[in-house]
Amino acid sequence: MAKQHIGLIGLGSMGTPLAYNLLAAGYPLTVYNRTAEKVKPLVEKGAKQADKSEDVAQPGGLVITMLSNDEAVKEVAMNDAFASRLGKGGIHLSMSTISPDTARQLAEHHARFGVLYVAAPVLGRPQAIADRKAWACVSGEASAREVAKPILLAGAVQSVYDFGDEPAAANVVKLAGNFLIASAIEAMSEAMTVAGKSGIDRQTLLNLLTETIFPSPIYKNYGQTIIDRTYDKPGGFRLPLGLKDMNLVLQLASEAETPMPLAQLLQNRLQTAVAKGRTDWDWTGLAAGAADDAGL
Amino acid sequence: MAKQHIGLIGLGSMGTPLAYNLLAAGYPLTVYNRTAEKVKPLVEKGAKQADKSEDVAQPGGLVITMLSNDEAVKEVAMNDAFASRLGKGGIHLSMSTISPDTARQLAEHHARFGVLYVAAPVLGRPQAIADRKAWACVSGEASAREVAKPILLAGAVQSVYDFGDEPAAANVVKLAGNFLIASAIEAMSEAMTVAGKSGIDRQTLLNLLTETIFPSPIYKNYGQTIIDRTYDKPGGFRLPLGLKDMNLVLQLASEAETPMPLAQLLQNRLQTAVAKGRTDWDWTGLAAGAADDAGL
Amino acid sequence: MAKQHIGLIGLGSMGTPLAYNLLAAGYPLTVYNRTAEKVKPLVEKGAKQADKSEDVAQPGGLVITMLSNDEAVKEVAMNDAFASRLGKGGIHLSMSTISPDTARQLAEHHARFGVLYVAAPVLGRPQAIADRKAWACVSGEASAREVAKPILLAGAVQSVYDFGDEPAAANVVKLAGNFLIASAIEAMSEAMTVAGKSGIDRQTLLNLLTETIFPSPIYKNYGQTIIDRTYDKPGGFRLPLGLKDMNLVLQLASEAETPMPLAQLLQNRLQTAVAKGRTDWDWTGLAAGAADDAGL
Amino acid sequence: MAKQHIGLIGLGSMGTPLAYNLLAAGYPLTVYNRTAEKVKPLVEKGAKQADKSEDVAQPGGLVITMLSNDEAVKEVAMNDAFASRLGKGGIHLSMSTISPDTARQLAEHHARFGVLYVAAPVLGRPQAIADRKAWACVSGEASAREVAKPILLAGAVQSVYDFGDEPAAANVVKLAGNFLIASAIEAMSEAMTVAGKSGIDRQTLLNLLTETIFPSPIYKNYGQTIIDRTYDKPGGFRLPLGLKDMNLVLQLASEAETPMPLAQLLQNRLQTAVAKGRTDWDWTGLAAGAADDAGL
Repeated sequence: MAKQHIGLIGLGSMGTPLAYNLLAAGYPLTVYNRTAEKVKPLVEKGAKQADKSEDVAQPGGLVITMLSNDEAVKEVAMNDAFASRLGKGGIHLSMSTISPDTARQLAEHHARFGVLYVAAPVLGRPQAIADRKAWACVSGEASAREVAKPILLAGAVQSVYDFGDEPAAANVVKLAGNFLIASAIEAMSEAMTVAGKSGIDRQTLLNLLTETIFPSPIYKNYGQTIIDRTYDKPGGFRLPLGLKDMNLVLQLASEAETPMPLAQLLQNRLQTAVAKGRTDWDWTGLAAGAADDAGL
Repeated sequence: MAKQHIGLIGLGSMGTPLAYNLLAAGYPLTVYNRTAEKVKPLVEKGAKQADKSEDVAQPGGLVITMLSNDEAVKEVAMNDAFASRLGKGGIHLSMSTISPDTARQLAEHHARFGVLYVAAPVLGRPQAIADRKAWACVSGEASAREVAKPILLAGAVQSVYDFGDEPAAANVVKLAGNFLIASAIEAMSEAMTVAGKSGIDRQTLLNLLTETIFPSPIYKNYGQTIIDRTYDKPGGFRLPLGLKDMNLVLQLASEAETPMPLAQLLQNRLQTAVAKGRTDWDWTGLAAGAADDAGL
Repeated sequence: MAKQHIGLIGLGSMGTPLAYNLLAAGYPLTVYNRTAEKVKPLVEKGAKQADKSEDVAQPGGLVITMLSNDEAVKEVAMNDAFASRLGKGGIHLSMSTISPDTARQLAEHHARFGVLYVAAPVLGRPQAIADRKAWACVSGEASAREVAKPILLAGAVQSVYDFGDEPAAANVVKLAGNFLIASAIEAMSEAMTVAGKSGIDRQTLLNLLTETIFPSPIYKNYGQTIIDRTYDKPGGFRLPLGLKDMNLVLQLASEAETPMPLAQLLQNRLQTAVAKGRTDWDWTGLAAGAADDAGL
Repeated sequence: MAKQHIGLIGLGSMGTPLAYNLLAAGYPLTVYNRTAEKVKPLVEKGAKQADKSEDVAQPGGLVITMLSNDEAVKEVAMNDAFASRLGKGGIHLSMSTISPDTARQLAEHHARFGVLYVAAPVLGRPQAIADRKAWACVSGEASAREVAKPILLAGAVQSVYDFGDEPAAANVVKLAGNFLIASAIEAMSEAMTVAGKSGIDRQTLLNLLTETIFPSPIYKNYGQTIIDRTYDKPGGFRLPLGLKDMNLVLQLASEAETPMPLAQLLQNRLQTAVAKGRTDWDWTGLAAGAADDAGL
């Protein structure tokens, strides 16, 4: 049986390996990217190129957006040309990390055109997507979620966590995940600073922690970055984006009437770093706050 | 070659499996416990029983203390009968979780008698010791550390992390570890509270986190306790002991001139729980703070 | 010389004494209030009654708004009927406590009609307005500020503090003032809680503080409320409004890239109180947070 | 009737004006100071000079200590020569700012000799003592308090606040006062930083605040220091002493099971300043923390 056609908007560091995986799995694929040169190698592998973003869609089909922020997703998807072209029964599979608010707005907008919205933000770095070893959390209309799951598995992830019908739920989960990562960074930062100033070898401490009770890539990788103070290395998640995420966490906390003092501390660390001009650092650089305050 | 004789003071939930393992490994063992009935089954396995704590020692030999707090260790070991009986070249292997300050005092006291002090606090629950799957961090005089390592491996742990000559270093490391555990509890608590109030299924969220980026027993076990709110289950680490540890962390922070706002937040949570009378809870109960503040 | 005609929208607890003062000072006055019965006693004193809010304005004249929140001010003033009736050279003297953002939007909206916007939020309770003992901070277009000052002095305040041309400046100042008040409440709350639990007579402590280094009505009045725990007395400033203000402070902090950990703590206290259902309390009730956490 | 003889130990910036006032009021006075040259001008005014600190005492008489810290007071007063010379019915009027713990220890020590301990720490700068415009809080044995009050009024203060029999109570009150001062500094610091970065004139803001709702010397003087950033001016209260006081506040909080997050924030600010080497600053310099974090 012929596989379902997929439209894909966004060929950044996440969208590109996704596209290759989908082609390799045999999905007919039409792609769009703002800068066209990224499209060419995919066309050579069999993808079709769309001239306008909405042209990736087939009526009643499925379109993936994999873009860098809320504004970019809104620009291509919160417009009537996109939704009317997808049309009744079409599915918008939104894999970008966006705010719960934007997710809700998109779902409402699409509903007026009979388009189903599925949120599926991904946990993992570009290489993990290439290896189909990332993870996705998914939420939105039930039948559309079922359509989305095999595509996510074929294109990017090793497993899918289902958070039900509420379109914004998966985005809430993604924010919770990022909050937990930032919390681990702050915790390690304070621990490493006080241990280092007390004469403890920090590398042995990190080895102990990550080989015993915290065998997590988060603790391993971010912990090493804290020891090496390589906050300005390229390729990571920029600090101002981390601040934006923490602002979204606190907005969520406010809506849910849930005081989150640790999230506030993290926002402070990130805000301080931005105010000090560390805008091109990886967000692990929030760890420099504890060191600064200790006079290092 | 005959194995070295070992004296062991303390047959609580940690000391008892340690004693069985040492006997099984062929070490001649003399034990002392305040309540004598715990001694009998070990005597049946070949251990000797001492009537007074200092009588477990052989001149120039090795004595392990595995007791519940600083005061208990000071009572048996910071006295001249103990140190003079162990005598020149004797080793005190201190496996209890005590403060860096007490460790330093013990090392100084022992030095006057030629006794070598080695700190070796253990990470892990009683069952992990029984299975020799716990971990130890070790610090103190170099030659004595080397004597201690095979005994730790035979009796309790799968690996030993060496933090050098400073007697208190291993205790600093243990405190850093407990700080990181409490930080993870607070982070999960805030995340679970805001997610739950936002309609997210908390169990699926925990599964996602611990099967992907946080595959750590800390996140799994404490996270489940937070979801189930089983803070008063027996057998864990009591909340007032957690508060005591966080006070020690902040004392360390003060000595090292290192502001630790996250440690302060954790102290607040634990202090609040104690002030509310939750003194028989497991220290995971600090997680109730975020829920209380959210009106749950 | 005949005095300038004044239009006044809003006859709440603040607007009513203002209206009486302006009439007593000889200003021709036209008033509007949503519930008309509050208008009658003023008409007996010589005021004219408008049927619609925009009808209080005379072309090129001056209109005061004294309403309870941003939405109410926007409804009557961010509309073209209001601004076109006031017209070129007309002045909107906005005395409500609103957000800097709303102030900026109003100024921009009015500018399209040639209407000048002056922000003049007031510090002081209704009785202080009646006695013309309140204070105003003022900002906006320079010539309009000069027109506004004698009217503020005649109607409500003993002095006017001038913060220049930027329309939102006076609202920023008002928020800073509220932040300082809430900070004093939290400080007294923690001090009173720890002193009380340490056996200190709290009334003597408050007397000492307010008769010596803190001879401020804020410390006196709020301090007494904390001692008496009369958080639910009528007539004050509701707790959810305090939370709204603290959210505005933190939004300002975010725009100005200024971490404000004390403002975050206050937001937490207020958010906790709202989550616990204390929505009809005076905002001094944020002080209950420290007492709750101390198990009282 | 002849006035009671007074012994005075400590002729620093606080003790010296106290001594002049007591002489001017007709009290027979014997003084001791570690560096003897400060004694001479007082001898010319009629004071007697003691060669050893305990020699200022007359049996059954009254001795004032006015020294810089706990250690200095303990050295002269927690010794048997001092207490046995004062003897049964003698009074030790302790005017230094010391910890509640030291106060309790002194009271217990003195009791063994029949000496009565009265704590009377003073609020106010040296000039206020010279003008007898400072304030005292007093606690300790009832009859001894009554003896102390007229001496305090003649020597240093305009009024005395009585906190009852518990010897340490007045020291707890003094700590609470310092906590409130530091809280006001932090609050003004955050307010001034966010207002300044938002384009508000900070001097006008300070004038507004201190002429209206905060007419307190604390807000006026410390506020001006924050605006002028003159943290390194001589003559104030050194930052490390402020940190010491905040540590005492948190120790008190711990004993009273009262979480004090604002006190923790202040400790952080002071600890950060010390770690950055600002040890010769006035403690108002804790205000630099908010400015640092805002990238100023």
